[in-house]
Amino acid sequence: MEDVQGRHDAREIPINRVGIKDIAHPIVIENRDGSRSTSVATFSMSVSLSHDQKGTHMSRFVQMLNENETVISAKNFHQMLQAMVTRLEADNGYIEMQFPYFVEKTAPVSKVKSLMDYQVNLIGQIEQGHLDSTLEVTIPVKSLCPCSKQISEYGAHNQRSHITVGINCSAKLWLNELIQMVEAQASAELYAILKRPDEKYITEQAYNNPKFVEDVVRDVANEFDLCDKISRYYVHAENFESIHNHSAFAVIEHDKSV
Amino acid sequence: MEDVQGRHDAREIPINRVGIKDIAHPIVIENRDGSRSTSVATFSMSVSLSHDQKGTHMSRFVQMLNENETVISAKNFHQMLQAMVTRLEADNGYIEMQFPYFVEKTAPVSKVKSLMDYQVNLIGQIEQGHLDSTLEVTIPVKSLCPCSKQISEYGAHNQRSHITVGINCSAKLWLNELIQMVEAQASAELYAILKRPDEKYITEQAYNNPKFVEDVVRDVANEFDLCDKISRYYVHAENFESIHNHSAFAVIEHDKSV
Amino acid sequence: MEDVQGRHDAREIPINRVGIKDIAHPIVIENRDGSRSTSVATFSMSVSLSHDQKGTHMSRFVQMLNENETVISAKNFHQMLQAMVTRLEADNGYIEMQFPYFVEKTAPVSKVKSLMDYQVNLIGQIEQGHLDSTLEVTIPVKSLCPCSKQISEYGAHNQRSHITVGINCSAKLWLNELIQMVEAQASAELYAILKRPDEKYITEQAYNNPKFVEDVVRDVANEFDLCDKISRYYVHAENFESIHNHSAFAVIEHDKSV
Amino acid sequence: MEDVQGRHDAREIPINRVGIKDIAHPIVIENRDGSRSTSVATFSMSVSLSHDQKGTHMSRFVQMLNENETVISAKNFHQMLQAMVTRLEADNGYIEMQFPYFVEKTAPVSKVKSLMDYQVNLIGQIEQGHLDSTLEVTIPVKSLCPCSKQISEYGAHNQRSHITVGINCSAKLWLNELIQMVEAQASAELYAILKRPDEKYITEQAYNNPKFVEDVVRDVANEFDLCDKISRYYVHAENFESIHNHSAFAVIEHDKSV
Repeated sequence: MEDVQGRHDAREIPINRVGIKDIAHPIVIENRDGSRSTSVATFSMSVSLSHDQKGTHMSRFVQMLNENETVISAKNFHQMLQAMVTRLEADNGYIEMQFPYFVEKTAPVSKVKSLMDYQVNLIGQIEQGHLDSTLEVTIPVKSLCPCSKQISEYGAHNQRSHITVGINCSAKLWLNELIQMVEAQASAELYAILKRPDEKYITEQAYNNPKFVEDVVRDVANEFDLCDKISRYYVHAENFESIHNHSAFAVIEHDKSV
Repeated sequence: MEDVQGRHDAREIPINRVGIKDIAHPIVIENRDGSRSTSVATFSMSVSLSHDQKGTHMSRFVQMLNENETVISAKNFHQMLQAMVTRLEADNGYIEMQFPYFVEKTAPVSKVKSLMDYQVNLIGQIEQGHLDSTLEVTIPVKSLCPCSKQISEYGAHNQRSHITVGINCSAKLWLNELIQMVEAQASAELYAILKRPDEKYITEQAYNNPKFVEDVVRDVANEFDLCDKISRYYVHAENFESIHNHSAFAVIEHDKSV
Repeated sequence: MEDVQGRHDAREIPINRVGIKDIAHPIVIENRDGSRSTSVATFSMSVSLSHDQKGTHMSRFVQMLNENETVISAKNFHQMLQAMVTRLEADNGYIEMQFPYFVEKTAPVSKVKSLMDYQVNLIGQIEQGHLDSTLEVTIPVKSLCPCSKQISEYGAHNQRSHITVGINCSAKLWLNELIQMVEAQASAELYAILKRPDEKYITEQAYNNPKFVEDVVRDVANEFDLCDKISRYYVHAENFESIHNHSAFAVIEHDKSV
Repeated sequence: MEDVQGRHDAREIPINRVGIKDIAHPIVIENRDGSRSTSVATFSMSVSLSHDQKGTHMSRFVQMLNENETVISAKNFHQMLQAMVTRLEADNGYIEMQFPYFVEKTAPVSKVKSLMDYQVNLIGQIEQGHLDSTLEVTIPVKSLCPCSKQISEYGAHNQRSHITVGINCSAKLWLNELIQMVEAQASAELYAILKRPDEKYITEQAYNNPKFVEDVVRDVANEFDLCDKISRYYVHAENFESIHNHSAFAVIEHDKSV
């Protein structure tokens, strides 16, 4: 059978990225304490294609996922990127994998334990031999409006917010550490289980700690600026406003090397 | 060319519903005050198919949308259902159309006007000659937790909530009327524009008016029970909890004829 | 601290369902061969609430998920429902859990193995002491249009389709069995990895096996009618038409006991 | 009442973008032939914030949408960006607006007319006085696999595909023109209504015109390279593969000024 993808292409147009997306696959994640978590990831995998080749070999991407158990660590993710560009005979390669990650959290007063989920997105690329990767996490928190608190006799509007951070590291930073750094900058953290004394604690903590969406991104940025392990970052906060049917959002990007 | 859909089918299996879905089409809506609004609806249109017919004629559904400007009123919606079963030569017919509907709201203190959007779903069916239709609307509001208020020294967690109601009417009820009936049962309403005096008003109103998700569905149910125009309803409330990463929800269904 | 949820409610309105939704939790699934798979499920858990009680105890639902590893089998799912109504002191209870499930499939010619994912939804309820559960699965397949094949000199339009089935069983039916029964009724099955000889096989198989969306639901219904283990079912097929920007769909529902 | 947002901020951290998102608003679009279409857009509007200011004035964004009927043309979009940075007293400003846009298409043989919808995203920015805008459109088409056609005795797998293009223009290019340029590069175009002779035409056209996802992006890139009105572009094609449960995709980016 003819290898149609392998034909010569005369259009003289190189392709930046070609590959597969929206493929689900079970994964295993190495945790900080040596334990392993399971999850399900959605992958996007692609490579560059030179101007003279008609098509890439799509099935090779899927074979990479199916040949071995997919154990995810920073090291493995880099090896996976390297293996992909070698196998696809490509100059550049790109992998994104998104998955829910669970952290066991302890309620502030009752000390009841429960799992909370965070969406993680590992984004990696090799371009001209240079490997770069970004760890992106979306962290749901509570925000309480400083203006509403200030101008009202009692109460203050508050809501669920998403803080999405993307970091490039010069030294190893565990998912747990990153999540804790970010949660500490919100008006209050979220938990899957809160007993009444915990609910009182969180309510009062948020009221004592009002933050605009601008305050949230600045306080996260300040933490990241102080952390030597982070060389470049972006932080995006979105408040699902409880007095409007739309969101408020803010973004800070910072490359420390510039 | 052969009419393959028109072939005889020997499997002896009737089909409950067959048709098209997820087709977008611009619409015009008749408002209470005689004015007209424009929107974009997503349609699902289907009919029953008798056991001896191989296929329905899918293009006729789409022709119905394209032949005339789609002006939506309760009366037109019923005529559209009738026209569909006639044209498709079917016993039963089903139409759903979902679209955003905009209402001009006036902020409580500053009186500034702004549009707010509500998702509407018109659901109609003709079964064995009997026509029935449900008007479903999702109404975003604010809810404030009575428990959090009661047990905390100050503050109370609150959040955006969605109240989705589906009603069957014995007399005409305008979208605006229905939305106002429902919004009045929340801890507070939402607005696209709130000036500072409005924000103070809403914050204090919600604090004075705490409601569990259970309270919201009960208070809406109570209103609907008192309204003679409504013969059957369901009310579903969902709080996007600002202390958890999951929702709380409650549902009441009531058929007054039973 | 006062138990606000436990207060007496004077509105005299019972609530059909109240609980939590959209909470993610890792699960373990028992397979037919005794092995175990891991996945991540999204849960909805709710109970009825009597007319005289102000609120339910939301944290108990979450505690049920967090106290034990969530191992899912038909038996465990029923025990979970029973435990929930007991723990929440409720008459009626409802659980839905949605999760991706992976099946290792073997390509038809090359025999290469790869995982494919299916969305599963377990839906269970206890009403007035009676337990009932539905196993719902969405199975992506290929459909090829009989009309397009018949009227064209060469080729035929085909596309990805979703067949969603919901079954109530009188005897144990494994997920694998159900998926195979349904895939056999499509124009062709899907696979994550297909080598060129497999691609030729699938292309020709689909061309030899054209089916309208009506044919697909009838052929699945026919299989289910013949299967003694299934007492009640619905089958919904949706073709993401490759000649239109909308879907064609069909539905058959059948309760054998009626 | 205190203007909390107007307070001085001592953290010395400027914010790249702060504003609102996911707000729906009805719009009017100027067409090529002078006629006007209506649609509903989802807006994101944001500005930069200097290091010494605590917060921006969120309600001003919404006021801009509500003060005037939102008539969208290239010229108006640029004026809206200018007005926003002036009103928010900001250095930089960003607007994105996404909406469905309908084009009346004529079936190839029967000449039946019907509307088809395309998702449009207008993306504009003013940075340091320099205005730049990108017109992004997602165009659904049919793709037919050259490999499947070549190796199979008969038939060829085909599927719905999305071609998303983003262009920066040096001269006016109407939406209609852009959509036609892109549709001409697919295996075949889609239509909302196709009669049998049209279906035969499209089926055979696609079979005569097989294209990999790589071919589609190259052929669109080639057209854009030849079009003097386009100064910079990206083209992303995604095939919702009808033999797999995942997508194939390809991307080309080209800035002609580099």
